[in-house]
Amino acid sequence: MLIIDKLIKKINETGNPTVVGLDPRLNYIPEYITEKYYDKYGYTPKAAAKAMLKFNKKIIDNVCDIVPAVKPQIAMYERYGIDGLKAYIKTCEYAAEKGLIVIGDIKRSDISSTAEAYSDAHLGKCRVGENEFSCFTHDFVTVNAYLGSDGITPFLDDCRAYEKGIFVLAKTSNPHSGEIQDLLVDGTPIYEKMGALIEKWGEDFVGEYGFSSVGAVVGATHPQQAKRLREVMPHTFFLVPGYGAQGGKAEDLAVCFDKNGIGAIVNSSRGIIAAHMKDQYKDCFSDDKDFALAARQACIDMKNDLRRCI
Amino acid sequence: MLIIDKLIKKINETGNPTVVGLDPRLNYIPEYITEKYYDKYGYTPKAAAKAMLKFNKKIIDNVCDIVPAVKPQIAMYERYGIDGLKAYIKTCEYAAEKGLIVIGDIKRSDISSTAEAYSDAHLGKCRVGENEFSCFTHDFVTVNAYLGSDGITPFLDDCRAYEKGIFVLAKTSNPHSGEIQDLLVDGTPIYEKMGALIEKWGEDFVGEYGFSSVGAVVGATHPQQAKRLREVMPHTFFLVPGYGAQGGKAEDLAVCFDKNGIGAIVNSSRGIIAAHMKDQYKDCFSDDKDFALAARQACIDMKNDLRRCI
Repeated sequence: MLIIDKLIKKINETGNPTVVGLDPRLNYIPEYITEKYYDKYGYTPKAAAKAMLKFNKKIIDNVCDIVPAVKPQIAMYERYGIDGLKAYIKTCEYAAEKGLIVIGDIKRSDISSTAEAYSDAHLGKCRVGENEFSCFTHDFVTVNAYLGSDGITPFLDDCRAYEKGIFVLAKTSNPHSGEIQDLLVDGTPIYEKMGALIEKWGEDFVGEYGFSSVGAVVGATHPQQAKRLREVMPHTFFLVPGYGAQGGKAEDLAVCFDKNGIGAIVNSSRGIIAAHMKDQYKDCFSDDKDFALAARQACIDMKNDLRRCI
Repeated sequence: MLIIDKLIKKINETGNPTVVGLDPRLNYIPEYITEKYYDKYGYTPKAAAKAMLKFNKKIIDNVCDIVPAVKPQIAMYERYGIDGLKAYIKTCEYAAEKGLIVIGDIKRSDISSTAEAYSDAHLGKCRVGENEFSCFTHDFVTVNAYLGSDGITPFLDDCRAYEKGIFVLAKTSNPHSGEIQDLLVDGTPIYEKMGALIEKWGEDFVGEYGFSSVGAVVGATHPQQAKRLREVMPHTFFLVPGYGAQGGKAEDLAVCFDKNGIGAIVNSSRGIIAAHMKDQYKDCFSDDKDFALAARQACIDMKNDLRRCI
């Protein structure tokens, strides 16, 4: 089954087009977790990474039955070097074991032979002698296509071979995304030119719901642009960052969905994984060991907020 | 001292504007190396990674006095997961110990808070409690600025704090780079728009030779575009991929240098690190243990080829 169909089925089952951004920072993690690892490993990247993994597992345990997917942001782990990347890989593995779709937010990009190496790592397999290894556990990854189709084709080949998917950056959620993305080419902005390429790359991957396994990243913070992209990219599923902490509202991102209420999955990171730090969620848990109940409630609240508008 | 001045001094000392692309593939590595590790670790990513590191050290030992810099391509290591990334880190450390400037070809990109995490990893430091750690050993890294200045500012902050540099993708060497990069905005191509941003980002980093620590990636395979970029980016140093195996010729890339013969460093990967597999270099070494003498000769030949045209 195409991975996009699996994702949409999971969204329908949970009734929740929310993806939990697993982008932990040390200050989000309750002290009972961090102190344990600082005691054991000192104030080291290893302790930080172990605490992040423990934290993520708690979050995953508490949300895995009510959301379809998680999106770990690899930069937050790469920051801590090899130890951090080990925690990243184990986070992805654990989420997959718990039945979640894993969207690796890696935004990799390069020319063809190099993109092939990235794709071997993140979607496909690496080969040593006759043996094959999957070093990372991803269902989808995000990619940056500034280099054009040469850098995308190797990922498409692995999407085909291993039933995987990608989300290509079209219009990102950050304030200055327009510096390049909004430039006009004969009246058409670059993000729309990128959108047309993404539609084309997805042609061979369209599934039973009419969407392809080649999706696009479209920020919730730019509703006008998202509306336009929804019109010109009818077969492209959107991964929508920017909800909540970055300022994107449910009303704004409703345009990312089609008339049947499908077509997008909305990410929230801080709003969910750091919910236990907000006054609004203090009553969800009595003890720091239950902090992730706040994340669970935040997922339910986000679901209700999104469904109100879709 | 600004890192760009250190790089230009090293180029002047060696008389060689060549950067050795350390992008190993298993089939480049002599069997006496790979077999040793397969015997010890089986056909595993660990064996592959150990062989790559050994191979790189041999190359570095044989070229470190005649080239200014190396550019390991992280994708080639990431392909082998954690083991590969360990080999990447050790390769960078070893090259730095041998006095080489290390350009990490990582092409990372993201929104601001995430770009900050990447920059902590690759140029700056990560913090755990009061402790600080440098997880990767880089003087420069390559970055992709499709997301605009939000994703670049954190790297600039670390360039300032730690005397580091970046090379931002402007016009890449791959055949289809024009799909986005050549689109015209009121007659000006996107790569030139990107070039103007890069010049601006580099304003505060201009050193004694008139070039800044914020450089640009400009492919040798597109001489017309490179010529134009040299004119409109007078303070921007170019990292030039595409020489040799990708088809770029010394005559074509002379336009990347200014009238004083500075302004660019030219990458070759396969042409140097796989030189021992070419008939032309068979006479450089008598025994597989000396295979890297071919790489040394290839660096000298490349120097002569470039200096003929600059």
